[in-house]
Amino acid sequence: MSLLARAETSLAFSFEGAVGHSAPPRLVAAMRHAVFSGGARIRPQLTLSVAIACGDDQPALSNAAASALELMHCASLVHDDMPAFDDADIRRGRPTVHKAFGEPLALLAGDALIVMAYQVLLNAGHALPERLIGLMQSMSAGVGLPNGIVAGQAWECEPRADLGQYQRAKTGALFVASTCAGALASGSDAQPWVTLGASLGEAYQVADDIRDVMGLSADLGKPAGQDLLHTRPSAASELGLGGAVDYFQDLIQTAVDSVPACTCRDMLQQLVRRESERLVPSAACAAYRLPSARSAPVVSA
Amino acid sequence: MSLLARAETSLAFSFEGAVGHSAPPRLVAAMRHAVFSGGARIRPQLTLSVAIACGDDQPALSNAAASALELMHCASLVHDDMPAFDDADIRRGRPTVHKAFGEPLALLAGDALIVMAYQVLLNAGHALPERLIGLMQSMSAGVGLPNGIVAGQAWECEPRADLGQYQRAKTGALFVASTCAGALASGSDAQPWVTLGASLGEAYQVADDIRDVMGLSADLGKPAGQDLLHTRPSAASELGLGGAVDYFQDLIQTAVDSVPACTCRDMLQQLVRRESERLVPSAACAAYRLPSARSAPVVSA
Repeated sequence: MSLLARAETSLAFSFEGAVGHSAPPRLVAAMRHAVFSGGARIRPQLTLSVAIACGDDQPALSNAAASALELMHCASLVHDDMPAFDDADIRRGRPTVHKAFGEPLALLAGDALIVMAYQVLLNAGHALPERLIGLMQSMSAGVGLPNGIVAGQAWECEPRADLGQYQRAKTGALFVASTCAGALASGSDAQPWVTLGASLGEAYQVADDIRDVMGLSADLGKPAGQDLLHTRPSAASELGLGGAVDYFQDLIQTAVDSVPACTCRDMLQQLVRRESERLVPSAACAAYRLPSARSAPVVSA
Repeated sequence: MSLLARAETSLAFSFEGAVGHSAPPRLVAAMRHAVFSGGARIRPQLTLSVAIACGDDQPALSNAAASALELMHCASLVHDDMPAFDDADIRRGRPTVHKAFGEPLALLAGDALIVMAYQVLLNAGHALPERLIGLMQSMSAGVGLPNGIVAGQAWECEPRADLGQYQRAKTGALFVASTCAGALASGSDAQPWVTLGASLGEAYQVADDIRDVMGLSADLGKPAGQDLLHTRPSAASELGLGGAVDYFQDLIQTAVDSVPACTCRDMLQQLVRRESERLVPSAACAAYRLPSARSAPVVSA
């Protein structure tokens, strides 16, 4: 089974195991809409590939950890799309949750997905308390205060924000939790996997900034030009587009190099490179890198 | 130290232990505004009094459990007050979080408080994994799907809702989690404490309906007439005001009678009766009960 198929199957299994039979039907429908809508599932794939690299001796716990992190990601998308933030009508080519179900259910669906992420971990891990507690601590750090994705989003509401801190929190934190979860679910030390998550996560955020400026965002099913519109910190506006593209490629290289020696090193490195290409096609990068590469010798001559 | 003082001190300690030093300052301010604003702290007081009844051999864990449940309650208030739901300007006599900090930070503060509730439990309980896991399962059930307070709120978005199921979920679920948490934190069986939480929680919801109609809600620092305005299920509209008052008093009696034999039985029963009086003063009840009590013999004569 491919990583993507395993991530998708696990998510469906975890969701059904937590949802119960007596919940309000429209809330459940809104949550399903948020979760099962063709996401790339990069976070759970990261978790699963690191778990495999670490032996994956408790695959049900790895699956639950992968699912929990994707549920957190989906929760954040539901709330970020709401009128208070991006006011986005479209996500992954379909109506956003608040457009399809209204704002009250979007708000509640996000809340319920956050709690469900913990429920999924508890359902799968209560017999392995040490691993479970490590996973919950790591996931909480990836989402909550002081430096998780909720804090990252909140930096947009501050009069001043450090671009690096903002990006590490807004996207990097949940990527770090995702790589660490694979190790923790397998009873391994999470530390060697932090750099992979952090650099890949920051690369995602920089890619998002680049795509937003290049107008590529529509390919991912969401509107372009949002950073400028919402005056958000952006690598593209801080470094220029060429600088942002260079920075993105450096981050990808750091992620690739950080993968510890293990039987799955090739698989993980390929996963990172494939994602890099999907996010910012190298052809698009080259177009923006060439002018500065050509002009550099002229300036120094 | 009184129960209220212990609840308040614990909440401040738990909050500071989880908030960290590098979080966005306005987000932290919004969370403080939501949590430290003179709430009655009935849920944490319930947790602490049940913990004492069960021996309270791990007071730091009891304190954390009490705090976590209050954080969940505060999170739900922040989101419920937002324009998508009650659109309330005032809570406990002060501006609501979205009025004071804007909608984006209100949305994020609620999310961060949900995660913080888990962080508080993890910080205090990681050395007692069995109790910690029980507490997390119980708290998750009180908040999430299928029958927690988020589900309760979502029943307002359904075309049809059973009044009992709605009230049990919307308010009762977190009260059940609060009484059970006291037992679980002390290593005791939670089951004997379910009825106390469930009946007191339902009484709170019925009291809210009664107050909303009687116009007493302003005493609690929020606007009256919200149920009718938002066409929500309400005991007062389903049973009539007299019937709702009778039902409220039956629920309080059930709660009082349910307290298991223990050294703290009197204290707990007094807590319940004091809350009953605070919520719906017996003088107000009497005014609504007398006519039906007087007319009954006439009808049967």
